[in-house]
Amino acid sequence: METIVIALGGNALTIGGKLADAETQLNIIDNTSLQVADIIGQGYKVVMTHGNGPQVGGIVLQNENSAAITPAMPFDVCGAMSQGMLGYHMIQGLQRAARLKGSKASPVAVVTQVRVDPEDPKFKNPSKPIGAFCSEEEAKKLMAEKGYVMKEDAGRGWRRVVASPLPLEIIELDAIRDLMDAGHTVIAVGGGGVPVYRDADGDLNGIAAVIDKDLASERLAQDLDADIFMMLTAVEKCYINFNKPNQEALDELDPETARKYIAEGQFAAGSMLPKVEAAIRFVEARPGRRCIITTPEKAVEALAGNAGTVIR
Amino acid sequence: METIVIALGGNALTIGGKLADAETQLNIIDNTSLQVADIIGQGYKVVMTHGNGPQVGGIVLQNENSAAITPAMPFDVCGAMSQGMLGYHMIQGLQRAARLKGSKASPVAVVTQVRVDPEDPKFKNPSKPIGAFCSEEEAKKLMAEKGYVMKEDAGRGWRRVVASPLPLEIIELDAIRDLMDAGHTVIAVGGGGVPVYRDADGDLNGIAAVIDKDLASERLAQDLDADIFMMLTAVEKCYINFNKPNQEALDELDPETARKYIAEGQFAAGSMLPKVEAAIRFVEARPGRRCIITTPEKAVEALAGNAGTVIR
Repeated sequence: METIVIALGGNALTIGGKLADAETQLNIIDNTSLQVADIIGQGYKVVMTHGNGPQVGGIVLQNENSAAITPAMPFDVCGAMSQGMLGYHMIQGLQRAARLKGSKASPVAVVTQVRVDPEDPKFKNPSKPIGAFCSEEEAKKLMAEKGYVMKEDAGRGWRRVVASPLPLEIIELDAIRDLMDAGHTVIAVGGGGVPVYRDADGDLNGIAAVIDKDLASERLAQDLDADIFMMLTAVEKCYINFNKPNQEALDELDPETARKYIAEGQFAAGSMLPKVEAAIRFVEARPGRRCIITTPEKAVEALAGNAGTVIR
Repeated sequence: METIVIALGGNALTIGGKLADAETQLNIIDNTSLQVADIIGQGYKVVMTHGNGPQVGGIVLQNENSAAITPAMPFDVCGAMSQGMLGYHMIQGLQRAARLKGSKASPVAVVTQVRVDPEDPKFKNPSKPIGAFCSEEEAKKLMAEKGYVMKEDAGRGWRRVVASPLPLEIIELDAIRDLMDAGHTVIAVGGGGVPVYRDADGDLNGIAAVIDKDLASERLAQDLDADIFMMLTAVEKCYINFNKPNQEALDELDPETARKYIAEGQFAAGSMLPKVEAAIRFVEARPGRRCIITTPEKAVEALAGNAGTVIR
């Protein structure tokens, strides 16, 4: 039985980048869950992960706006809250989809911490977009008033960016593996995991950062020795010359070519770049593996080799 | 090896009913975790649950206050967020405490849904306090403006109350048992679980309610066939004539006497009453069981029979 780690983008859970209300979010998750339940029905062991960029941005905003009346939780705790929120909707979606597809999901969502190095150089160069898109004017206002770092995001508008250190260790790995081995569809590493570091005593402490969920999911896929790693995002394939007249979709990609495109700056930081980096790392670690990048709607088709970009 | 389910009160995680900031909340959890790590070190299999009354109230407030700029999540989703938040702090606290005590905790927090009956008569008579305490004047304003049901809570002030239906089924029971059997300290049924009901198709859907965490924890303790069920709360023992000049602490309590006190109205609804009800149900279901009610600080002492109220 092959193991597949499926990473669902946080943006894929929004309405074109705008945060969805609970009903809409659940509907979006229901649609993706049908694809996942189909894959479970094909006999794959599935572990799901998810992004939380837009969602944790909303939670941070809610916390900040009410700080005068109820304590505002720091970034790491907001990340854990987003794991509860999205994990809950994902287990409901999977239960429903599994019934419709006649497969057995037994989904369970696990709060997941991911260890980072507090000396990671990425802390000096924030790059991970979070929260809602806004105009340049609004962005400049937020930078001046709140001290946020804001950047333009792949032609879609301006967003806050925070540090995105490399994921070094999935703290709850044993629990995730135990659940997977017992036949559960595990939902873990939400939002790339809650970022933690080890102090001098060896204890874990939260730290303000967003771990890229694709890199964290790849870390998990490696540690579980998965056979397939699938990233579901807003675009059906990887492209070169993205959003330009000579844009070209990639059906297949090998690590060598991928590295050449990265060197050319073909993939956007905080968006397609970490996906392709994660794909290279995953497929190069063991022969016979493949990595698939596509949209949630095309997951089943792409697994059959008829959609998306396959990296091997 | 005996199994013990330890339920930690949501109020026990506050500063006298007021919501704590992240650092304070973590400190409170650290202190309780030392007791739990000691119990783990004694060789017990531990499953922890926790309340979320004050915390989910804060999250609801944050959601409502920012509804104009980011979608406000409904009550069930806010409950799942509180499971993420508190579960995260509890795994960190247990990891730290286990190191200090030289025991192995391997904690893991699981998003937990608990099924209720949408026809439960409790939906017609809301009784579970949530959120911060406020004055009678503030309470009347909230009742008029927001349509909340507000009640006076055991002499401590006014609070919003919502329906508190009976817990019928722990949806993630298999996952919790699998993790427990694999040697993890599981944190589950946070806030009594996210309340869900089955629709005509058999699918799970969220519903606006708070399941009493003591009754849900007792349901879990039954389903795991636990030997000991411990409820950690704001008072060291059960009392009769509580807060009156003739107040009397109870060291031991049997189900028959407990029922008599319940009939006399000795235990406050939404506070000590569900604890005593849960205790009766737990100890009567199988001989040799005991239930302990005490404060987080007295957990180890009470387990040794030297503090708290023991129901058997």
